[in-house]
Amino acid sequence: MTTVPSNPTTGRAATLQSIATAAGVHRSTAARALDPAQSHRISPEVVERVRHEAQRQGYRRDTIAASLRTGRSSLVGVLLPDLGNPVFAPILDGIGLYLAERGYSMLVTGGADEASQIGIVEELMARRVDGLVLATVRRDDPVVTICLAAGLPTVLVNRGEDDLRTASVVTDDMGGMALAVDHLVSLGHRRIGHLAGPQSLSTGALRRQGFENAMTAAGLDPCPIVTATAYSRDAGEAATALLLNRYPHLTAIAAGNDLLALGAYLDVKRRGLTCPGDISIVGHNDMPLVDMVDPPLTTIHIGHREMGASAAALLLERIGTPSLSPVRRLASAELIVRASTKQLARADTAIGF
Amino acid sequence: MTTVPSNPTTGRAATLQSIATAAGVHRSTAARALDPAQSHRISPEVVERVRHEAQRQGYRRDTIAASLRTGRSSLVGVLLPDLGNPVFAPILDGIGLYLAERGYSMLVTGGADEASQIGIVEELMARRVDGLVLATVRRDDPVVTICLAAGLPTVLVNRGEDDLRTASVVTDDMGGMALAVDHLVSLGHRRIGHLAGPQSLSTGALRRQGFENAMTAAGLDPCPIVTATAYSRDAGEAATALLLNRYPHLTAIAAGNDLLALGAYLDVKRRGLTCPGDISIVGHNDMPLVDMVDPPLTTIHIGHREMGASAAALLLERIGTPSLSPVRRLASAELIVRASTKQLARADTAIGF
Repeated sequence: MTTVPSNPTTGRAATLQSIATAAGVHRSTAARALDPAQSHRISPEVVERVRHEAQRQGYRRDTIAASLRTGRSSLVGVLLPDLGNPVFAPILDGIGLYLAERGYSMLVTGGADEASQIGIVEELMARRVDGLVLATVRRDDPVVTICLAAGLPTVLVNRGEDDLRTASVVTDDMGGMALAVDHLVSLGHRRIGHLAGPQSLSTGALRRQGFENAMTAAGLDPCPIVTATAYSRDAGEAATALLLNRYPHLTAIAAGNDLLALGAYLDVKRRGLTCPGDISIVGHNDMPLVDMVDPPLTTIHIGHREMGASAAALLLERIGTPSLSPVRRLASAELIVRASTKQLARADTAIGF
Repeated sequence: MTTVPSNPTTGRAATLQSIATAAGVHRSTAARALDPAQSHRISPEVVERVRHEAQRQGYRRDTIAASLRTGRSSLVGVLLPDLGNPVFAPILDGIGLYLAERGYSMLVTGGADEASQIGIVEELMARRVDGLVLATVRRDDPVVTICLAAGLPTVLVNRGEDDLRTASVVTDDMGGMALAVDHLVSLGHRRIGHLAGPQSLSTGALRRQGFENAMTAAGLDPCPIVTATAYSRDAGEAATALLLNRYPHLTAIAAGNDLLALGAYLDVKRRGLTCPGDISIVGHNDMPLVDMVDPPLTTIHIGHREMGASAAALLLERIGTPSLSPVRRLASAELIVRASTKQLARADTAIGF
């Protein structure tokens, strides 16, 4: 292994050894005290003494040189589908807080298609990240294959793969959709449609499956489904137009996520109908501000912040012990009833299907 | 300078020289072609040839070793006040896309108080970031002092300092608030109040100043102001309660940002009043989804994504030429009229102030 001077830019005389000597500890103890990823293993009193001495001597820890010595960068790469989408803000916040408390930093990227994602992952590997959190994956994703081939600890968040190749934290998508359908059924709705998300994503496929299962279990027709081309308001509006043209007698819609539900609001309004007067709508995610839209959105709440923290925790476990087997952790889903759903008038119920 | 083997993990025989020879170019050209931060300086055809050869030989560029050679990490640190706040998502997106296209990666942190921010900046320096984008600063911020003392290129975004110590991209806060007040005045409102943001932040202080100036220019009383303790919905609700208790005859409120305006919605509703029937409300930022709240929020639109990209551009200029003088770039502000403001009934206008 190549030895690198502790601080080639400033050329200061302070060294780890001079600090260790002054603080009266072993060199390795001083190194750990100055490493945010390791300082929790040492008594706070010693950490304080070493840091004080480092400051007095003008010593600055050289993370890059340290990473060449230890083979660890204390860097984690995070890939999001879209940095500008407010859904991902709480996930990123959860990951970031968990990592920061343990001395890890986050390299964040977003907005890339699959081809660029491979380039991004290679760039992150060149930066020797200790692991990756992917919020981008498709149900069978070549990016995961690359990470596994490289032996890089990798955790999926929010979206999972069909096969259990690596650790993931996802919501109970099918369970959440069952909550949405059962809520609508309990309000007397029978003719319920589904705006499905993209079927290449686990959330799109599993929520659709959850819709079909719940409708069948309730003895209702599971067919009124249109798949949106993306998780966006525009795509939700277009899919709702198709859905209501094809099934004009629907009284309720269970949307694959909140943005699709807000798109449904727009198409319903364009037709001169009202929500929930004519059509009840349920979202999925409980993203920021949907409690204040008009009408406030009934939706499935997902603890995105906790999900992010949980993904970070699984990743650090795997950085410490790369041989840990894959697990799939399910975050809980909860129905939040607001004003976009209401009891179906008796006359409508009587029509049946 | 210490020489580091090109790929110590895999130990593969491929070297920069072997790739350069096979591609028929000089070693330095091959190095540039494989460096995302420099490849734009070389013809795409040569870049393609070198990359193809690198892939064929199984060569992986070692960013850390490269950064020890060049003294550049192609890493930029980004400090946000709160990763979970949807306002910052488009700013982060703008920064991230601009940097990624130029081969830079982003270390993102958020949610820290001032004391922790200093620790974060020191950690980022230890990682040898080439520069910083700060979205966190107070009007006179010790974090900026530390960056300047270290000679680290630093750009402020969204929030600026009072003194022009470093480059910044902020909105025209005073101009934006003038747009809000003038809009309300044009609708016949005379008794207008202001929910000010925290006065330690430039946005809080400048928007307040903008409110006072615009009210005075219109010959109106600039005094009905309450300062919120934070930029949050809860703080906006509490500040509105104080404002309307103290000035019960107000017919309009210009809020310091959208979250404060949404807090005002809650207090107005709690009083059994309606917006805009009894009170018109204007926000500031045009954050995601305020076009769909009830009522859709009239607000000042700020191009947050462009602001992020502009901050990233200023930073890369300064990384290239550290001696560039500080500039303050103003992003444009635009009034977006939605349904939370309306013409004042004539009887109310007649009362005067």
